[in-house]
Amino acid sequence: MTATVSPLAPKRFPKLSPLAGVRLADHECGIRYKQRTDLLLVEMAPGTTVAGVFTKSLTCSAPVLWCKDAAAKGSARLLVVNSGNANAFTGAAGVASVKRTVEKAAKVVGCKPSEVFIASTGTIGVALPDEKITENLEAVHKKLKEDAWERAAKAIMTTDTYPKGVTRTAVIDGVTITLNGIAKGAGMIAPDMATMLSFVFTDAALPHEVLQTLLSKGVQKSFNSITVDSDTSTSDTLLLFATGQAKNAKIKDASDKRLKDFKAKLNEVLLDLALQVVKDGEGATKFVEIRVTGAAGNGAAKRIGMSIANSPLVKTAIAGEDANWGRIVMAVGKAGEKADRDLLSISIGGIAVARNGEGVEGYDEAPVTAHMKGQNIVIEVDIGLGKGKGTVWTCDLTHAYIDINGSYRT
Amino acid sequence: MTATVSPLAPKRFPKLSPLAGVRLADHECGIRYKQRTDLLLVEMAPGTTVAGVFTKSLTCSAPVLWCKDAAAKGSARLLVVNSGNANAFTGAAGVASVKRTVEKAAKVVGCKPSEVFIASTGTIGVALPDEKITENLEAVHKKLKEDAWERAAKAIMTTDTYPKGVTRTAVIDGVTITLNGIAKGAGMIAPDMATMLSFVFTDAALPHEVLQTLLSKGVQKSFNSITVDSDTSTSDTLLLFATGQAKNAKIKDASDKRLKDFKAKLNEVLLDLALQVVKDGEGATKFVEIRVTGAAGNGAAKRIGMSIANSPLVKTAIAGEDANWGRIVMAVGKAGEKADRDLLSISIGGIAVARNGEGVEGYDEAPVTAHMKGQNIVIEVDIGLGKGKGTVWTCDLTHAYIDINGSYRT
Repeated sequence: MTATVSPLAPKRFPKLSPLAGVRLADHECGIRYKQRTDLLLVEMAPGTTVAGVFTKSLTCSAPVLWCKDAAAKGSARLLVVNSGNANAFTGAAGVASVKRTVEKAAKVVGCKPSEVFIASTGTIGVALPDEKITENLEAVHKKLKEDAWERAAKAIMTTDTYPKGVTRTAVIDGVTITLNGIAKGAGMIAPDMATMLSFVFTDAALPHEVLQTLLSKGVQKSFNSITVDSDTSTSDTLLLFATGQAKNAKIKDASDKRLKDFKAKLNEVLLDLALQVVKDGEGATKFVEIRVTGAAGNGAAKRIGMSIANSPLVKTAIAGEDANWGRIVMAVGKAGEKADRDLLSISIGGIAVARNGEGVEGYDEAPVTAHMKGQNIVIEVDIGLGKGKGTVWTCDLTHAYIDINGSYRT
Repeated sequence: MTATVSPLAPKRFPKLSPLAGVRLADHECGIRYKQRTDLLLVEMAPGTTVAGVFTKSLTCSAPVLWCKDAAAKGSARLLVVNSGNANAFTGAAGVASVKRTVEKAAKVVGCKPSEVFIASTGTIGVALPDEKITENLEAVHKKLKEDAWERAAKAIMTTDTYPKGVTRTAVIDGVTITLNGIAKGAGMIAPDMATMLSFVFTDAALPHEVLQTLLSKGVQKSFNSITVDSDTSTSDTLLLFATGQAKNAKIKDASDKRLKDFKAKLNEVLLDLALQVVKDGEGATKFVEIRVTGAAGNGAAKRIGMSIANSPLVKTAIAGEDANWGRIVMAVGKAGEKADRDLLSISIGGIAVARNGEGVEGYDEAPVTAHMKGQNIVIEVDIGLGKGKGTVWTCDLTHAYIDINGSYRT
C-alpha cells in the first residue's frame, strides 16, 4: 500500500445527493486493515431491481458466483462489501462463508437470501473471517444513512489512493432520475470486466431485463475498455441497482426511446468510474488515451488498442516521457489483427510522428516532448485499412507499481 | 543500457570449436554504438543449406521480409548482422537499405543476393545508415576466421549483458556432426518466435526441407516457450545453416531415424540459447520455470503457462520473493483455457502450497521462503482436468526493467 495519493486524482470527491430508496453505512470490522473502515452495507427499498456484469475469470471468487446467480433473479434489498480479503480461491470454506454472511444479512433486513449481494476485495487465498462481518451486521444496520456516499467509497478501497464516486441526473419521460456510483481499483485491472468492484444506484423504476441490457452494453466502452496491468481479477463485480422510487412511467424494453437520456447518463457514470480506476492504477503518473481508427472492424480496433495499452515497453516509455513510437508499431504488430506496416500512421499529442510506414521527417519535436511531460497522454493510431475504431485507456508503468506489488522483503 | 551483468549469467562463454565451412568476423562500424563492435559477417561454404523461423509480427522489419524469401529458396553463403539499428518501420528507405547491403555483400563474396541473409537489431524507426556497413564489407571479409565465435556473439548484442553461445556434437549414421549457436535478447521477448536474433550453424549435410522441419518443430519447446515481457519484436529471426562439410550420408526426410541424435542435440542447442535469453531478460534477477500439467491439452497447458509467465503481478511477486500463489490462480483464471478453481493444485519449489481450490493448511513455509530467495524458481501448476502438459520459462519483473526501458529524462 502506498500513502501517496495518485497525481491523477480528481481534486475532490463529487457531491453525491441522497438517492431515494438507498441508505448506506460503513464499519471497522478489523478483517485485515487496522484503523480504517472495511465493511459497507447498503440497504435498498423493497422492489429494487438489479443487473450485474462480472469477471470472465474461470477461477472467480465465491462472492462472484453468488452474485451471478442472485443477479439473474433480478431483485435486490442489500449489498454487503468487505475490503481486505477477497474470499477468492478459498474452496468450500469460501462458499460456506458467503452462505453464512448472506443468511445472517437477510435475517437482519428481513428479505430473501437471494436479495442479498455480496462482494469481497483484498488478499486471495486466505479464509475470510466472516464472523467479523456477521457479528457486526445488526449494529451496522442501525447506522444506515442516506448521505454516506463518500464514506461508502472509502470503505471498499484496497490499494486505491482515493475514493471514487460519480453522480448524474437524467430524465425519463419527464421524471428526473438520479444516478450515483462508486468504484474501487487499482491493480489486476484488465480487459474483460475491468474493475475490481463498482456499484451504481438509481431511483429509476426499470425491470431487471432492461437494466441488464443497458449495463451489458454500457460496459463495453467503459470498464471493458480500460487496462492497468493486463491482469484480470477473480473478483470483478459491477452491479446496477434501481430502487424505483422515482416512479417514472413503466418501461419494458431497453430500446424504448424514452430511455435515451438515461442511457447516455448511465454510460457517462460508467465511463467516469472506469477512468477514475485507471487514474488510480498502481503507480500511475500518466493517464493515457489510445484512439485507434482505420482498423478492419471495431473489435480489431479495440484489440489493437489493448495491445498497445498492455505493452510493458510502451508503458515504460510513457513513464519515461519518451515519444517512442517504434514501440507502438511493435504493439500493433503483435496484436494479431490485420495491419500493414506501410499504411500505419501515428500521432502523439495531435502531432503526426509517423506516416505511411515511416517516421515523419523533421516533425516538430518540441510540442511532442511537452505533451509527453504532461499528465494526459493522447496516442492516435490509424491502421489505414478500414473503418473500425475504438478508444482504450490505461496508465504508465512505473517503479511504484513494482514497489506496490513486489513487497520487497530485503 | 545497463553495465551490470545479469546475476543469472553463465560463468563463462562456452568453448565453441571451429565448424567446417564457417568463418566469422566482427567490426566496429559506428552505426550507433561507440567503441564496440556492431557488425558480424559469417561466410559459409558453397552448398550450405538454410532454414528459418521468424517473428509473427504483422509489422515486421525489412530484413525479416528479405530473410523469409531467401530462406524459402534454401541456399546460403553469407550472413550480415548489425546491432544498434533494427531497420524496422523505416518504410521504402528500409527496403532499399537491405537491397544495397545484400547486393554489395553478394559481390564481395561472389554469390547470388538470395544467398545473403541479413539481420538488424536495435532502435526501431530510424533509417539505417547502411553505407557504414557497405563501405566496410570488403575489409571485414578479409578478417574472416574460424574461431571468432565469442566475438560474433558480442557483436550482435544490444541491451544483452552477456554474449550467448552453445555447442553440441551429434552423430548422424556414424559421422560426428558439430552444432554451434549464438543468440541475443533481451527485451521484447514474447511468445511466437521469442528471440530477437539467433543463428545456429552445423556442418551436417541436410537439405533445406529437412532443416526447416526440424527447426520449426524444435522452436516450439524452446524459443516459443519463453517470455520476458510479452512484447513481440518486429525483428525476431532464427536461422539454421548447414554447411554439409561433415559429408554424412544423404538424408531426404526429417523423420529419418538416423536423425534421432541430431534432432535431440539441435533441440538442446535451441533450448540452451532460449534459456540464456531469458536469463538475460531486462532487469532479471530470478529465472522462473513454470510447469503446467493436467490441462485439457498441451496447447492449453502452454497458454496457461504463458498467462502466468506474462502476469506483471506474478512477476513482481517473484521479484519480491513473495510466494503469492493467489496471483498464480488469477493468471490461470484469465488464460481463457478450461480450468476449475476447485481442482487446481500449486507447488512452489516442490512444496504443495494449494490443493483442490484452497491453500494447504499449515504447509511448511520455511523451504518455500528459502526457495523464493534463490535464483531459480520452479512453479508447478496442476489443472486437474486432463493430460495436457507444457513448460515455459520467464524471469521476474524488477525496477531495473523500468530503468532500462523508461530512459527517464529527469
